[in-house]
Amino acid sequence: MYHSKILVTLRQSILDPQGKAVEHGVHSLGYGLVRNVRIGKFVELDVDARSREEAETVTKEVSQKLLANPVMEDFSFTIEERS
Amino acid sequence: MYHSKILVTLRQSILDPQGKAVEHGVHSLGYGLVRNVRIGKFVELDVDARSREEAETVTKEVSQKLLANPVMEDFSFTIEERS
Repeated sequence: MYHSKILVTLRQSILDPQGKAVEHGVHSLGYGLVRNVRIGKFVELDVDARSREEAETVTKEVSQKLLANPVMEDFSFTIEERS
Repeated sequence: MYHSKILVTLRQSILDPQGKAVEHGVHSLGYGLVRNVRIGKFVELDVDARSREEAETVTKEVSQKLLANPVMEDFSFTIEERS
């Protein structure tokens, strides 16, 4: 069994209003050193695949088709084998 | 300048309805091998700190006070120096 950890991030050219809101909150708490807050998604899932290659294919396709918006977001992932 | 990457995840004991919804979507796309989808947050930010220790302190405190709900969520982070 394989465990995938997927990061979905907004492209740098896309404004991130949620990140801006968090940045304001952070500054209100007194942390003025903090800049450029960007919010993304972190998705974990198990793939009951027979090989790492199959797990990678499934993870990549699911990320492309469902998890990330191809117009605005990028994704990356790591896969580890689990017993 | 330091760049922090923070993962905020729901504790394993907490139900994740958003993850369940994504799992249903994944199965509808034909990927029946996928199980146990869990959704978390990924936050990136810069800290204009003078030392790695200061950047770590700021990142940890911001995570505890604002980014993670201490009742339901855990967080972890990595920090890298950037010029």
